[in-house]
Amino acid sequence: MARLTGGDPSLLRRINSAVVLHALRATDCATLTEVTRVTGLSRPTVEGVVEGLIEAGLVVETAAEEGAARRQGRPARRFRFRAEAGHLLGLEIGVHRVAALLADLDGRVIGARAGDVDERVDADERLERLDAAIGELLDTAGVPRGSLRAVGVGTPGIVEADGTVRLGTALPGWTGLGLGERLGRSFKCPVLVENDANAAVVAEHWKGAARETDDVVFVLAGLSPGAGSLIGGRLHRGYGGAAGEIGALHLLGREATPETLLSTTDEPLHPLDEQAVAAVFAQAREGDQRALAAMDRFIHRLVHDVAALVLALDPELVVIGGWAAGLDGVLEPLRRELARYCLRPPRVALSHLGEAAVATGAVRLALDHVEEQLFAVEGTVTARR
Amino acid sequence: MARLTGGDPSLLRRINSAVVLHALRATDCATLTEVTRVTGLSRPTVEGVVEGLIEAGLVVETAAEEGAARRQGRPARRFRFRAEAGHLLGLEIGVHRVAALLADLDGRVIGARAGDVDERVDADERLERLDAAIGELLDTAGVPRGSLRAVGVGTPGIVEADGTVRLGTALPGWTGLGLGERLGRSFKCPVLVENDANAAVVAEHWKGAARETDDVVFVLAGLSPGAGSLIGGRLHRGYGGAAGEIGALHLLGREATPETLLSTTDEPLHPLDEQAVAAVFAQAREGDQRALAAMDRFIHRLVHDVAALVLALDPELVVIGGWAAGLDGVLEPLRRELARYCLRPPRVALSHLGEAAVATGAVRLALDHVEEQLFAVEGTVTARR
Repeated sequence: MARLTGGDPSLLRRINSAVVLHALRATDCATLTEVTRVTGLSRPTVEGVVEGLIEAGLVVETAAEEGAARRQGRPARRFRFRAEAGHLLGLEIGVHRVAALLADLDGRVIGARAGDVDERVDADERLERLDAAIGELLDTAGVPRGSLRAVGVGTPGIVEADGTVRLGTALPGWTGLGLGERLGRSFKCPVLVENDANAAVVAEHWKGAARETDDVVFVLAGLSPGAGSLIGGRLHRGYGGAAGEIGALHLLGREATPETLLSTTDEPLHPLDEQAVAAVFAQAREGDQRALAAMDRFIHRLVHDVAALVLALDPELVVIGGWAAGLDGVLEPLRRELARYCLRPPRVALSHLGEAAVATGAVRLALDHVEEQLFAVEGTVTARR
Repeated sequence: MARLTGGDPSLLRRINSAVVLHALRATDCATLTEVTRVTGLSRPTVEGVVEGLIEAGLVVETAAEEGAARRQGRPARRFRFRAEAGHLLGLEIGVHRVAALLADLDGRVIGARAGDVDERVDADERLERLDAAIGELLDTAGVPRGSLRAVGVGTPGIVEADGTVRLGTALPGWTGLGLGERLGRSFKCPVLVENDANAAVVAEHWKGAARETDDVVFVLAGLSPGAGSLIGGRLHRGYGGAAGEIGALHLLGREATPETLLSTTDEPLHPLDEQAVAAVFAQAREGDQRALAAMDRFIHRLVHDVAALVLALDPELVVIGGWAAGLDGVLEPLRRELARYCLRPPRVALSHLGEAAVATGAVRLALDHVEEQLFAVEGTVTARR
């Protein structure tokens, strides 16, 4: 409950400012009369607040429409939120690629850059590749670094609240890396680091396959599958940030590893060799019996992992992503088997965002942070995260 | 945020009343001066509110302490919350037993009654046994049925919000039973039905092994294990109320069932024959090789199930309960295996409440409901559930 102490006019001003900004951001542009109606504030209050927001660079007067001018003689002044007043970066640092998305303060993506990275390069080289991609992206878009308000990052591993990678076995030199602090040196704005599957589920909820539901598990299928979950619309990180690391059931256990299951020879695949996986999927599509058998083993394992997640969490929807190609064959067996294992089988859908999911989620996390700064005042916290 | 509209004096009265009641309940007894200090309300407001609470039967003036009387000449009047102003029932309806706890409005248990039930009896007979236990309990305590403010119930199965058992394979006639509505006929107060493992985790958090943590998974170990979870102190039921039904992984799947794993002969145990399970545990303690091997198989399976829950949820603590005896041998293997499987192994503890866990949790659920009624006003919702 907000404590509305009558004696704090600056708090009231901040609340009114947030309310007006919210109203303007929800529409293309609006007159003072419209803002007054929507917010319930008085006309003089709205005028004062809008004046302050114009000075802060967050609101601008738009050109009056011609039609309105003609009808009314003197047109009403119209105002809009300046989404271009600041920018956000959404970064993915993966095993095989780095990617960066540039967005405005409405979260609209205005530029993208990605590059392949060898899975064996060390942390320094990987981050240099990322930095180069960011530099090109900002140059091309003509956005200065100082315009960035927040940077979101999605990467494999267990990530601490301060942006340190506590455990990240998929990338060389990742475990123990102070990734948030390290990236923070390149930016003057906050850098928010998140597990890649967590970023992906946020993205699918924002603009992908999970727009309609607040209870969703996103499975980042791969040789070591991970998962991110929203419960009631909120990211479930777990007590130590390790929720959803279901791949560990096989990586650390005594059971057959996925790279053995997926092999069509007597040799297991390399744990991170996704090209080899894609080749097996392709052979299976062409009817190769050994590849089909390998696919079967792999799908059986994936179904088991997903079933364990579903039984533990009981989501409304499971979104399968990760490998851009080849996974559509997973859906039907998954649905069939979940109906056997689960008391109330969830819906199962493929990722809509594909390989853009992680970076898109990183944009959303950066946007959440900026919205908290712009719209939150003491006692009124935005509910998104 | 509460809308503190100046024009609604009855809302303000309710808020003030809740605040004073809260303050009185947090202490044995208090003077008006103490209440004034703690609540920040004015003396006349406190006097008016306390008068109203006395009329409602929720507060009573206590006898002044003799010491205070001597020191001050005229002793200050002292008031206390009347925990005896109403009562709660916490019920367990299990496979082999029914149990009832009677508590006052502080949640203090003032009576208990339990009875064995054959696992094969139908719903009518099971509920008759329960009703008899409740009748004896209320008679012995001298509490009239009309004094009950809320009844909590814990039972196996997936329970809908309205108290209907959507799926309950462990008890004959349970699936589809309108348990809340059925029990409601016997009481004039609300009846709240909850899955048994969910009730148990609430209990361990309230007064058991999980008092210190808000992120806990309670595993109701049995031939078909189930689990209840608190995330950030809140019960996680899942989208369809089926969260934690991890036993389905084996019940519905093609893998060996627990009753086969635990058998020391070539015949599987009966799925609900817990006496036979206890016998295997006892033989194992005496060093019987076949029993030890059966225990090993069973523990391996339990560890796998718990690991799946832990990887999905990443709790701070796992509490193992269910079978009152024999489970202490599970802890060490569980800790050892979780350290192998899990990236960040949780603490593992035995249930403190044993077979009282489910009924105790049912008391807490009833108490939550009453507290919401007593202390909540529009816009101020207690955070417990």
